[in-house]
Amino acid sequence: MSALNTDLYELTMAAGYFAAGKTDEIATFELSVRRLPPQRNFLIAAGLAQAVDYLSTLSFQREEIDYLRSLEQFKNTPPDFFDYLAKFRFTGDLFAVPEGTPIFANEPIAIIRAPIIEAQLVETYLLSTFAFQTMVASKAARCVMAANGRPIIEFGSRRAHSPAAGVLAGRAAFIGGCAGTSNTESGMRFGIPVFGTAAHSWTMAFPTEEESFRALQRLLGESTVFLLDTYDTIEGAQLAAKVGKPLWGVRLDSGDIAGLARQVRGILDRAGLREAKIFASGDLDEYRIAEFVQSGAPIDAYGVGTQLATSADAPTLSVVYKLVEIGKGDQVRYAAKFSDEKSTLPGAKQIYRSPTHDTLTLHNECKPESFGAPLVCPVMIDGIPLEMRSSITELKARAQKAIAALPKELLSLEPVEPYRVEISPQLLALAEEVRRQRHVVR
Amino acid sequence: MSALNTDLYELTMAAGYFAAGKTDEIATFELSVRRLPPQRNFLIAAGLAQAVDYLSTLSFQREEIDYLRSLEQFKNTPPDFFDYLAKFRFTGDLFAVPEGTPIFANEPIAIIRAPIIEAQLVETYLLSTFAFQTMVASKAARCVMAANGRPIIEFGSRRAHSPAAGVLAGRAAFIGGCAGTSNTESGMRFGIPVFGTAAHSWTMAFPTEEESFRALQRLLGESTVFLLDTYDTIEGAQLAAKVGKPLWGVRLDSGDIAGLARQVRGILDRAGLREAKIFASGDLDEYRIAEFVQSGAPIDAYGVGTQLATSADAPTLSVVYKLVEIGKGDQVRYAAKFSDEKSTLPGAKQIYRSPTHDTLTLHNECKPESFGAPLVCPVMIDGIPLEMRSSITELKARAQKAIAALPKELLSLEPVEPYRVEISPQLLALAEEVRRQRHVVR
Repeated sequence: MSALNTDLYELTMAAGYFAAGKTDEIATFELSVRRLPPQRNFLIAAGLAQAVDYLSTLSFQREEIDYLRSLEQFKNTPPDFFDYLAKFRFTGDLFAVPEGTPIFANEPIAIIRAPIIEAQLVETYLLSTFAFQTMVASKAARCVMAANGRPIIEFGSRRAHSPAAGVLAGRAAFIGGCAGTSNTESGMRFGIPVFGTAAHSWTMAFPTEEESFRALQRLLGESTVFLLDTYDTIEGAQLAAKVGKPLWGVRLDSGDIAGLARQVRGILDRAGLREAKIFASGDLDEYRIAEFVQSGAPIDAYGVGTQLATSADAPTLSVVYKLVEIGKGDQVRYAAKFSDEKSTLPGAKQIYRSPTHDTLTLHNECKPESFGAPLVCPVMIDGIPLEMRSSITELKARAQKAIAALPKELLSLEPVEPYRVEISPQLLALAEEVRRQRHVVR
Repeated sequence: MSALNTDLYELTMAAGYFAAGKTDEIATFELSVRRLPPQRNFLIAAGLAQAVDYLSTLSFQREEIDYLRSLEQFKNTPPDFFDYLAKFRFTGDLFAVPEGTPIFANEPIAIIRAPIIEAQLVETYLLSTFAFQTMVASKAARCVMAANGRPIIEFGSRRAHSPAAGVLAGRAAFIGGCAGTSNTESGMRFGIPVFGTAAHSWTMAFPTEEESFRALQRLLGESTVFLLDTYDTIEGAQLAAKVGKPLWGVRLDSGDIAGLARQVRGILDRAGLREAKIFASGDLDEYRIAEFVQSGAPIDAYGVGTQLATSADAPTLSVVYKLVEIGKGDQVRYAAKFSDEKSTLPGAKQIYRSPTHDTLTLHNECKPESFGAPLVCPVMIDGIPLEMRSSITELKARAQKAIAALPKELLSLEPVEPYRVEISPQLLALAEEVRRQRHVVR
């Protein structure tokens, strides 16, 4: 992948570190979320596989280096910096929580330890990769909770922020608990079940609605889903009842979905189509799904598009990538930022999870008995991925299990008291020391 | 590009049209925005160049076809459909408003006329391409209005919805009026000015803040921007004053930006650095920029990130892609959807703009004297792009001119009375006829 997909300042800093003779300086950066959006009681980490793909393959092409050389900002840069870029590869270490792990504010989603130029250069790509998939997986988890066992299909590619985002949204939504996606490329690339039958335009492309229904049925047989609301939902349902089997069910995409679902259920049942399912879509989100479920509307499955693929009620995450250590081993210097609202804690960290709370510790603290399981694991060492990738179905299963193990009150769609994340005494003491001295050399 | 990046139902419908013998049926689809977000008085169309790239190159790879063949949904599909996919190319026509054109609800951003399978298959990709860039260009235009002449740099790659979205956000923001982007790949691919100097981690990577400032200055000379708020903004400003020239200026990224800007301006001026500029960033949007400008804060330029690259206050656009005609010439049948809130107008359309309002007409209506200039232009004919692409700087200039020509009241950050879009009597009459008969054959 192209290492040029990054903020320019990552590259000017790279040139500066090179000029300052810091090519061998080791830096550790932590990627975390500064605060949870008010509408989220937890997040589901996602994006790690794409981060690994990126770190394993990034490099500069000759024409990219020529482009950089042409920029005003590099006119004082030592020429051998560009030779360095030509050989540039990521040679560092990556630690991360597994995809599908519930995470909270200020907990490390990923930790990069690498020569400072490498660690700095990958910031932009890693932030957008983890943030976007984490947002979508987290939103998916909420929709799945709301549906209370009924399957949710991710339908949002058309409203995703670019076609590439749509492909990743399908993946993240599956990790977050969805049953599948409408995005065909996502299905093929990531091995996710794909769903889809026909749009309103299909109905309109035939001289009559009945002809369109029969043509679909010939094609899809028992997978047939009649979309009812092109002209009139009730007439559409009566037509579906007349055309009859084979079919999987019908889809409602507009209007008073809950009310229409009841009427349509009646029409189908009276025609002996009790097995036919009702699928609802059309500007849905977790709140509308929860209403339908609570009202007892006879809806068997949901398609969620726009709101899911854009996490529209919380379309940004305050992800940050902060320098926490410079050097390693005996030479480590701890770093943190203390300015106003943007302060950070120094040192690479570990997360221990117990049934009631998490504890944030230094990465190399001795683990007290009372702490739970550590969540941050090694993923790449010296630029080489460890062979430990789970299948996407395993990631989804792990997420479901981990969500179920959270304190019950967090599993509400409404905001609740934040989950407790304690900071170990050793980490607190280090933070205070760094605050006083700006840097602490150990 | 891969034609597989689409919703599965586009492919099942393609199989259905193929099975129904509709491979030669010509369909016309219109891409438009159903309603403007409440916070937008106009939108700036963008994304056309990427749409053309896609339509010019899309095809199916052998392994993609094998994947489709393996899916349950295609088990009844005639085998020669897969041979058809192997040769699949887009052979249709594309009409669109030029990028940078202000547009309003229900106006066609793009019109596709092609064999129905082709026209249907490209829906998903086109929707996300046009919607995302249009959102970002529109948000950029608002930030630029608020800054009242001061340059805005797009800084949001790290918060964009995937790394690929960040590259496109830089492009769209430039069309919307930004002076440049931090995204280096966007700069190279699209010829956009790129900006960036150093992050907080740069300051922290040196034993003292002064060493970090001097190293940056050695590298960047007159392009140097000292980031002041890593430890303490006022101390940072005093240090910048001490280090002195050469420098472009300083950057404030947190805290009470307007108040700090005044203090920092004083410190710089007293040190004889009257030419040094103050650049502000950090969770900015058009409203905060307008406040700074109105308060007379001495800020010379702005970086806008998250809010711009995600259009965070309106992160979705209700873009739709609706069948408006089937067939062509003497055989055209007009189509529309009338169900509830999702109704559409039939027929391919043209937009005429006057100084006070737009008029939406049928594409082939005779143009009355009173109408202004038509906005929808041919872009591809028979799958071949017309040679008429403007440079991105021309697109930006066109947008600025077109925005300035809008009724003044629309150029408010607050919601105002919607711009008037009239519907021609001929179009209204056709809509009524289609509503009565479902389809109108002419």
